[in-house]
Amino acid sequence: MPTFIDIHEGFHGVTQDQFDEAHQADLDIQAEEGVRFERAWLDPSSGKVFCLATGPSMDAVRRVHARAGHPADETYEVPLEVS
Amino acid sequence: MPTFIDIHEGFHGVTQDQFDEAHQADLDIQAEEGVRFERAWLDPSSGKVFCLATGPSMDAVRRVHARAGHPADETYEVPLEVS
Repeated sequence: MPTFIDIHEGFHGVTQDQFDEAHQADLDIQAEEGVRFERAWLDPSSGKVFCLATGPSMDAVRRVHARAGHPADETYEVPLEVS
Repeated sequence: MPTFIDIHEGFHGVTQDQFDEAHQADLDIQAEEGVRFERAWLDPSSGKVFCLATGPSMDAVRRVHARAGHPADETYEVPLEVS
């Protein structure tokens, strides 16, 4: 299953509770698109969110975020990984 | 220990071996700066690399990449995380 990273803008000053709530909105519907959001990170100063997901296609990942009310600004397929 | 995500540009068409080698250059010196690169992902189409790291400061993370020969284009501290 391909891996994706996406970036959201505009999350300035967002709290952990608000971040949890936004993430939960993705989790609630991700199975309908065959997507799994693995982790996400937020910088409240720059307002950027980075999400790590797997799914059948970039469109499927983007659809979950759009349906959850926070469409991604950028999405990248990342076929190479190191750890 | 704070968490950081950074972005590198220009890694178009990079192979897994080349990615491994670039990452190893970070791992070889990261302890000198108190940094730990946890994971990194690469999209050879857009040429973007995303690195997840912990370390004492943003400067320390940026220093490791600069000393390894691939300075980051953008670095963000990400104090909030969901999983």
